[in-house]
Amino acid sequence: MIVLFTDFGPAGPYLGQMKAVLARDAPGVAVIDLLSDAPAFDARSSAYLLAAYAPEFPASTVFLCVVDPGVGGARAPLAVSAGGRWYVGPDNGLFAIVMRRAGAARAGAPKVWEIAWRPERLSATFHGRDLFAPVAARLARGESPPGDQRPAERVRTMAGADWPDDLARIVYIDHYGNAVTGLRAETLDAEAVLRAAGHDLRRAAGFSDLPRGAPFWYENANGLAEIAVNHGRAAQDLGLALGAEVEVVNQ
Amino acid sequence: MIVLFTDFGPAGPYLGQMKAVLARDAPGVAVIDLLSDAPAFDARSSAYLLAAYAPEFPASTVFLCVVDPGVGGARAPLAVSAGGRWYVGPDNGLFAIVMRRAGAARAGAPKVWEIAWRPERLSATFHGRDLFAPVAARLARGESPPGDQRPAERVRTMAGADWPDDLARIVYIDHYGNAVTGLRAETLDAEAVLRAAGHDLRRAAGFSDLPRGAPFWYENANGLAEIAVNHGRAAQDLGLALGAEVEVVNQ
Amino acid sequence: MIVLFTDFGPAGPYLGQMKAVLARDAPGVAVIDLLSDAPAFDARSSAYLLAAYAPEFPASTVFLCVVDPGVGGARAPLAVSAGGRWYVGPDNGLFAIVMRRAGAARAGAPKVWEIAWRPERLSATFHGRDLFAPVAARLARGESPPGDQRPAERVRTMAGADWPDDLARIVYIDHYGNAVTGLRAETLDAEAVLRAAGHDLRRAAGFSDLPRGAPFWYENANGLAEIAVNHGRAAQDLGLALGAEVEVVNQ
Repeated sequence: MIVLFTDFGPAGPYLGQMKAVLARDAPGVAVIDLLSDAPAFDARSSAYLLAAYAPEFPASTVFLCVVDPGVGGARAPLAVSAGGRWYVGPDNGLFAIVMRRAGAARAGAPKVWEIAWRPERLSATFHGRDLFAPVAARLARGESPPGDQRPAERVRTMAGADWPDDLARIVYIDHYGNAVTGLRAETLDAEAVLRAAGHDLRRAAGFSDLPRGAPFWYENANGLAEIAVNHGRAAQDLGLALGAEVEVVNQ
Repeated sequence: MIVLFTDFGPAGPYLGQMKAVLARDAPGVAVIDLLSDAPAFDARSSAYLLAAYAPEFPASTVFLCVVDPGVGGARAPLAVSAGGRWYVGPDNGLFAIVMRRAGAARAGAPKVWEIAWRPERLSATFHGRDLFAPVAARLARGESPPGDQRPAERVRTMAGADWPDDLARIVYIDHYGNAVTGLRAETLDAEAVLRAAGHDLRRAAGFSDLPRGAPFWYENANGLAEIAVNHGRAAQDLGLALGAEVEVVNQ
Repeated sequence: MIVLFTDFGPAGPYLGQMKAVLARDAPGVAVIDLLSDAPAFDARSSAYLLAAYAPEFPASTVFLCVVDPGVGGARAPLAVSAGGRWYVGPDNGLFAIVMRRAGAARAGAPKVWEIAWRPERLSATFHGRDLFAPVAARLARGESPPGDQRPAERVRTMAGADWPDDLARIVYIDHYGNAVTGLRAETLDAEAVLRAAGHDLRRAAGFSDLPRGAPFWYENANGLAEIAVNHGRAAQDLGLALGAEVEVVNQ
């Protein structure tokens, strides 16, 4: 299975062009759009989302990840093996959190390959189609990454190595206006209060426990603390924007 | 074939997570996104849309339907057999109209199962992924619903039992600004006038019959009366919002 | 492979209904959404986009193209063979540019069939589902178009025959706010300046060459001249709307 994680947006010609390459190079392999509206150009927020979604996918899933503001510049293209899954994309920290958690879970230390292969035609601005998609297809076919493994000391200093284990910020706002944080709920006490945009929010189990219009936070279906308003739109109702800081109080 | 009908929106991580479950549990089965922008939290409007789209799908199609404001609360999860097709989703009226029309068409009385099975991990807020998708996959594989059939008297009093046969409201606004009503055109006279937001609209066969800027209604490609403005955007031009009332005059 | 190119928008029930027909009539054939937000009702802008995307698709790809403001009117339904690929859609100029370039490339003169076949049920407003999708499925199965080939003299006077080889306008604005023109970059000098909305823009190789906030144009990954602002949103920052004129100066 190849899973797409991008900031391309739900429309536009970019997803389709990548999928055409995958259909050519890995025919018959299931391709699933996981997220097409990852925070644009924001590898850090995206890293915490990716790490929250990844564990429910089966072993040997290949994540093709394109949040790539530095495309065409000096950042290296990578293939990463972590927790039994593959990740293909730019070296900008996008994989920092999945790598750290895989290491912490003793699922085997993550391994990083620098992709040395270059296609015959490499555009300056669409490595997702020209470089990452063919490599993802290759991994999905069971082949090894076309490049050399990075030595451990260079892995330890990769982009994102200094990011926190959990990010106390809004990393995604969904279709319902819910504001997802980069904090794993399991790291928070039952009594923990999240303070965001001047609001103090208590934990609830889910939407059905609360009166209409009540703001709260809860553990979302991917394990992240998420801020919501019952029958409301939390982001608008509470004034929460992507990237807004969240403070954990009463912890 | 598994057909997805949700209010998840076209972006976001929810459709992809459901599809990953379907790919795991029903590999090789075609999965089609029918509607991802069903009226949010609005099971009633959605019920009339679903009933309009369903008949053109082949027998044994499984509709996986998630418009589920009560997720995590008391509403039961259902599997419904109506008109030769399967429907999986919450017991909130979403299937009331397909069930009624299947009964009226003598396609066999609809049958309702309450899903008794629960997955090992059931999140409080994403039954689409955790509960409905595995059941839809199971039905697509030809197995029976994991639960008991509801007795006929409990089926007759399900949510939506008191909704009208046709809904005289705007139930969807499409990408072109056309405003779809919950009224089947076949129930309306050729001379019927639809009154909406103070406008009286006559019937036309289609767009090419009318001058630019002319508002009208017509039978859309799914049999519903739809309000449009030739080369315009009816919802904005006429001030029609989702849920707005429509009056049938001159009938 | 069947490739969808439409102005249906990323949400809504139209793509899914077409895909259900394709799954029924061409089971097992890969179906890829290339563009769902082609300029609405704008066959001319769409024609230049389609011609830019098509060459990277393999021979015998079937493009199912629905940008069809004249649906239900007098315009004919077509199947076009150009450059080894098939195109199915309305006769409104949508295929004028792929046809011209295929002819110029001596890939064999393009051939045009007028689709004579009509389905049992043909709605007035959704020929994409009722007429074009079954024909696209038929071509994907290797069958010939159901209709007669147009004589060469009628092909030479088809809609779009008088459109320029390259269109000096904005034909698409993408998710990042980049403004795509209908000009092939290969037709422009390295020193060519694009003047749009009062701004004079010079060519750059890509985003990583420039300071933040700098506007420029570059050859995009499909060969078109595209106007961008590094770390900005060109359409908003420069005031560029779909259809805006672009002047080539210093050429």
